[in-house]
Amino acid sequence: MDIKKYLEEKKKIVDAALEGCFPNTDATGCETGYPSSLYQAMRHSLFSGGKRIRPILSIAAFEAVGGKGDKILPFACGLEMIHTYSLIHDDLPAIDNDDYRRGKPACHKVFGEAIGILAGDGLLTKAFELMTKHSFGDQEIILNIVNEIARASGISGMVGGQVADIESEGKEVDFPTVQYIHTHKTGALILASVRTGVKLGGGDEETLKAFTHFGERIGLAFQIVDDILNVEGKAELLGKSTGSDLFKKKATYPSLLGIEESRRRAAELMESGIDLLNPFGPEVEPLKEIARFVIRRES
Amino acid sequence: MDIKKYLEEKKKIVDAALEGCFPNTDATGCETGYPSSLYQAMRHSLFSGGKRIRPILSIAAFEAVGGKGDKILPFACGLEMIHTYSLIHDDLPAIDNDDYRRGKPACHKVFGEAIGILAGDGLLTKAFELMTKHSFGDQEIILNIVNEIARASGISGMVGGQVADIESEGKEVDFPTVQYIHTHKTGALILASVRTGVKLGGGDEETLKAFTHFGERIGLAFQIVDDILNVEGKAELLGKSTGSDLFKKKATYPSLLGIEESRRRAAELMESGIDLLNPFGPEVEPLKEIARFVIRRES
Repeated sequence: MDIKKYLEEKKKIVDAALEGCFPNTDATGCETGYPSSLYQAMRHSLFSGGKRIRPILSIAAFEAVGGKGDKILPFACGLEMIHTYSLIHDDLPAIDNDDYRRGKPACHKVFGEAIGILAGDGLLTKAFELMTKHSFGDQEIILNIVNEIARASGISGMVGGQVADIESEGKEVDFPTVQYIHTHKTGALILASVRTGVKLGGGDEETLKAFTHFGERIGLAFQIVDDILNVEGKAELLGKSTGSDLFKKKATYPSLLGIEESRRRAAELMESGIDLLNPFGPEVEPLKEIARFVIRRES
Repeated sequence: MDIKKYLEEKKKIVDAALEGCFPNTDATGCETGYPSSLYQAMRHSLFSGGKRIRPILSIAAFEAVGGKGDKILPFACGLEMIHTYSLIHDDLPAIDNDDYRRGKPACHKVFGEAIGILAGDGLLTKAFELMTKHSFGDQEIILNIVNEIARASGISGMVGGQVADIESEGKEVDFPTVQYIHTHKTGALILASVRTGVKLGGGDEETLKAFTHFGERIGLAFQIVDDILNVEGKAELLGKSTGSDLFKKKATYPSLLGIEESRRRAAELMESGIDLLNPFGPEVEPLKEIARFVIRRES
């Protein structure tokens, strides 16, 4: 299959759905329900060229287990909104203090810190509004999915990982801590994306289990590759400066294990993740290809 | 009825339920699921002597329409977590830059800005995790409630109002803008608290309508009283400095209409709100008393 074409097609669908949530109209204040600057700030970060990996993973998993139609889209969009909010808050001066993101000035650089914080808050909250809006008769499953996404995004997931990441800066940390950071900061939401697709698509317990192990491996591999790219990626492809992890003395796989060993582990995780999907039919091909793409990517 | 005793009793129930969500154990890092500092920061703000007005309103409305048992508690707690997150983010240097809250140092003053931002994010996300955790067979209603709470907290509600508030600082603003700020920044979540109780308690459409108009009036009155207290309240009772609105040239009722007219309008809103509940029986007495308390309060 042509994974590039697949990713482009799915990205278009996700982008169109996100546009539907935040249409590009000239929102000018109170009458529209919220102030224009907030709206522009959310759009700035939401439409800044993200690869839409999380929503596409959720769609691919949904379709792999036989899910049909558009009912995955509110969750696909919700996952991307949560991911985007986390990037906006991460980039803030008080946290990672990054000026650029995907080749554009970070949200707070354009709109100021206050609007940056509130645009993040707004996107996070909007995700939960969107995911609980339509029920399609699957209320029990939807509550279960929203609960899992909240857990993966919060203190036992992404937020917890982010705090551990910040607190490990400049310290000698052990391997379990780096793994904690990776599996929580990045892995949890990627895993939740895969599981959301399986649950909403009607996959059985056995399938959910296999896809879960796949999602865990891909989530960890994704963050290891991120760390490798921060060391030796091309800034013009990444759209942000490289070397920042080293500068901030971040706890990463390359800093603990070196580049070669990190690359080997990421490839191993990817391969073993793909193997777990072998018992399934050709419907899982896109998921496997996404896994390979995650390792190969240069940005 | 003895409203002071009622509020104390309900506060105890809410506090115990919140303790159940964030037990005061010595959480020390990765093994507990999230870093200790994050956990302490959330507890610092969550247990800093809040009056629990929103959760108590939801419980009072729930019981007023005949709701029984504990199933309101996850929503009561969720509403308080969302309120607390909003206070933590509001107090940040980039937003209102307040050093004190309820007589204690603000979250970011104790734990630093990064942890302050992430503690807010964690509380907001935890609220949605909690509210979707148990379904009690009322999945349809719960999805509807969570959706309304998300809407009330987000860009069309609290976050939108907060942005309008910030952007109005130091400017000449008109009365509709002040009303927009008040109804969104504070009113929306108070209204959602009342409506949550009615919906979960099984109130019919007619009841929901009456309680909604009550909630709108009380929400607006609450913020007007807040503004009045900022001008002439006692700092030692409020636990924060007064006069900050004037200093920051905030758009408030007192700044536009003066203290006396603001006080008159708050009382009028309270009285007309209470009148709307007159057709109901003695079960609505607590709600009426809470409304009177909202006006009378000195902190």
